[in-house]
Amino acid sequence: MAREAASGKRRGRRRGDGGTRDAIAEAARRLFGGGGYDRVTLRAIAAEAGVDPALVLHYFGSKERLFLSVAGLPVPPQEVLARLAEGDRASAGLRLTRFVLDRLADPRERARITAVVRAAVSEPAAAKLMREQLTLELMLPLAEALGSEDAALRANLAGSQVVGLIMARYVVGIEPLASAPAETVAAAVAPTLQRYLAEPLD
Amino acid sequence: MAREAASGKRRGRRRGDGGTRDAIAEAARRLFGGGGYDRVTLRAIAAEAGVDPALVLHYFGSKERLFLSVAGLPVPPQEVLARLAEGDRASAGLRLTRFVLDRLADPRERARITAVVRAAVSEPAAAKLMREQLTLELMLPLAEALGSEDAALRANLAGSQVVGLIMARYVVGIEPLASAPAETVAAAVAPTLQRYLAEPLD
Repeated sequence: MAREAASGKRRGRRRGDGGTRDAIAEAARRLFGGGGYDRVTLRAIAAEAGVDPALVLHYFGSKERLFLSVAGLPVPPQEVLARLAEGDRASAGLRLTRFVLDRLADPRERARITAVVRAAVSEPAAAKLMREQLTLELMLPLAEALGSEDAALRANLAGSQVVGLIMARYVVGIEPLASAPAETVAAAVAPTLQRYLAEPLD
Repeated sequence: MAREAASGKRRGRRRGDGGTRDAIAEAARRLFGGGGYDRVTLRAIAAEAGVDPALVLHYFGSKERLFLSVAGLPVPPQEVLARLAEGDRASAGLRLTRFVLDRLADPRERARITAVVRAAVSEPAAAKLMREQLTLELMLPLAEALGSEDAALRANLAGSQVVGLIMARYVVGIEPLASAPAETVAAAVAPTLQRYLAEPLD
């Protein structure tokens, strides 16, 4: 992360408008991902990006808008959904768990996802984003594609396990879960998501 | 909640030292439980309690110490543990799920628990408290009492589901999970906790 930060700063200083904007977005992604939303100041983001604080407001307008612009989904949910819903129904939970863990293994995506979860506890715009990205655009259409009844409740339950996993493994960092191999975690969590999305609930 | 707040203020004004201290603690519990840790100021807690801000510092020293004093467990973990570990091993997950939902049905306990989860994303002292209260003092000894191998990882997995449930149902409030009857939620979540704590993991 330190090396990325340094190269981000260099890019920010050397490039033109697009480079500066990108450097600010990259700095925001790192800082929001690593700490509480309310503690990340525009001044700290500017310092991390190596630019004048006025430029952050110039490009993004406000902290909330900067947050929302870096917290958007990088891949259209339809593409993700198609991949997860296709194939054997009995292994949908495993596909979903592996998809989530793969995304979190990528440092940039991990920063984006932990930023949304961290911010959701205090910032209503982030809580709304979490509901949309996790439940409405992913879990709910997946539960529906699998033909499950009570799709809305099932989507919420699956979302609760995923959010809890992000909290425990990446935000709070509880050991040994935080350092466990992804395949160990996938094997443990997949049956939970499978049951929530596609099997009898009680 | 509004009526409780008003009566809390009256108590704070009318009583002596102990009453003032209690009124501050009660106000802190409500405010930390309802919003992000970093947004709750000592000034706001003083206003909610109807006392001078200087008294908050006088009684509690700092925001962090005030937080820790209201976020402690109200019941010794040994008593809780004994109740959960005793009885049929196959229904330990259901006992744990009902215990968690019962605690969250009590407004005072819900405020305490959501305060810990909300604060854990930004405040290391709260993250430590979450690890201790949820994992080290509850889930881990329970997994051990049930005679499960890999008790530490199992405790983390069970903790992740419980934290995710608190986030989804009480902190972010995702519907229909937030309004679902406790027994519906218990029936859905109990098999997850049962498996994490006491059944084969893969």
